[in-house]
Amino acid sequence: MEHVQDLSTMREKINTVRKQGKSIGFVPTMGFLHEGHISLIRAARAQNDYVVVSIFVNPLQFGKGEDYTEYPRDLENDSRLAESAGCDLIFSPAVRDLYPPGYATYVEVLSSVTQGLCGASRSGHFRGVTTVLVKLFNLVKPDRTYFGQKDAQQCLVVKKMLDDLNYNIQFNIMPTVREADGLAMSSRNKYLTPRQRVAASVLYRSLQQVELLIRGGERNGAILKENVRRLITAVPETEIDYIEIMEVDGLKPVEQVKNNCLVALAVKFGSTRLIDNIILEV
Amino acid sequence: MEHVQDLSTMREKINTVRKQGKSIGFVPTMGFLHEGHISLIRAARAQNDYVVVSIFVNPLQFGKGEDYTEYPRDLENDSRLAESAGCDLIFSPAVRDLYPPGYATYVEVLSSVTQGLCGASRSGHFRGVTTVLVKLFNLVKPDRTYFGQKDAQQCLVVKKMLDDLNYNIQFNIMPTVREADGLAMSSRNKYLTPRQRVAASVLYRSLQQVELLIRGGERNGAILKENVRRLITAVPETEIDYIEIMEVDGLKPVEQVKNNCLVALAVKFGSTRLIDNIILEV
Repeated sequence: MEHVQDLSTMREKINTVRKQGKSIGFVPTMGFLHEGHISLIRAARAQNDYVVVSIFVNPLQFGKGEDYTEYPRDLENDSRLAESAGCDLIFSPAVRDLYPPGYATYVEVLSSVTQGLCGASRSGHFRGVTTVLVKLFNLVKPDRTYFGQKDAQQCLVVKKMLDDLNYNIQFNIMPTVREADGLAMSSRNKYLTPRQRVAASVLYRSLQQVELLIRGGERNGAILKENVRRLITAVPETEIDYIEIMEVDGLKPVEQVKNNCLVALAVKFGSTRLIDNIILEV
Repeated sequence: MEHVQDLSTMREKINTVRKQGKSIGFVPTMGFLHEGHISLIRAARAQNDYVVVSIFVNPLQFGKGEDYTEYPRDLENDSRLAESAGCDLIFSPAVRDLYPPGYATYVEVLSSVTQGLCGASRSGHFRGVTTVLVKLFNLVKPDRTYFGQKDAQQCLVVKKMLDDLNYNIQFNIMPTVREADGLAMSSRNKYLTPRQRVAASVLYRSLQQVELLIRGGERNGAILKENVRRLITAVPETEIDYIEIMEVDGLKPVEQVKNNCLVALAVKFGSTRLIDNIILEV
């Protein structure tokens, strides 16, 4: 496995791979890899001749007061994990190279897909995501890219951006990978105290509760959300950011569940904000 | 020469050309080709194995009350001219294909380069330009692209966008092509009445006057601009949009001319808005 930081070396590398007629699979990450990322790298390995994993904690997608500086980093362990999952090249550009002084170009999806959920809670977040991804896609020139269902809204935003900007990149969403108690794998789980770690299992329990209620015939969005609110507020050190039930297409909140829907949560455990979601077929 | 409208046909075409190892030169235009465009196509022909010219009147770069619907179109004549200049493929996508219902993604350069001149007069204009160009670059995947110096600010904005978004596309600026009396070639010259056409030569005369004054030692921006203002207002049916003298780097207005500068004009002749500029080495 190779490790590249420099942008022009990366370009040369990709040109060489392209000239060999190899297909390229790309997994963009912020590093501190866990089983969720590994499942994406394995999927890329299975479908492509050459697998690139980027590791870049993107300052542009963090808001003021968010955890950009604290975000966990461990490039050595990431390299070991990525290689064992079949990665051919780790690309870890420097912030000063991707955002040199005077940097001024931004890519933004302006639709209902970016307005609710994390788009409402984290101003500028998705603009940061789509901007860095356009840059990375232009450098890596992949045939296929892989994202995790855990970041459901991000998946919808990135898919929309790729379609709108006429990128010819196959977009693959892989299932959320969970711990034994159901907690979705996330680099931010590292922030949790042991007590908060136990508490955090309420996220997936709440999602399962909504599924049970819907299967049982409950269709009222407000009642479903109130059930989740009660479950979460019963757990110590929690603060709800949002509980939403939305149409999968267009991400508009639903009052009565009629079609397939996304149930999405963002909850703070102490100062650590975690998200989770499920898509329910109705 | 081939002519493609459909996006997926275009993709296949480009994939085939790429697999043959051919370099691609790309001239994006809004059609109604004139000698200015032809010089770009000839330059592309000289430097590339395969030359693509796009013809697309991009609604996103026209403001309310601007000339989107009146903008002149003549695909048949364009094809003839492009072919004779060495074009291999004309790409003329439909508006509904580049901007399908629900289209929502925009690319924007937010710096001093987009703020003054046409950026101030034509709100959203450069956002429309950079957005459609990202789409066209992603479809055509060129090695080199060619723009005219007449649109000086556009050149600076597009170059900035390409650099910031890590496109590996060589950006070439070709000199403004002028009529015998100095009027810069423009598809919009067609709008001028015979009387306005005569009047419009004042643009280049004014730019030459600034050059003469600077060569003669005048360095005061206000005095230089006042000279231009007098020349233009003496001509019937004129309305000045802007007269600016700016640093080439960063496009900030200069009070005292010290370094190389861009002298840029936008003037209405009747309802027809024309632009012109020169870069002066000081």
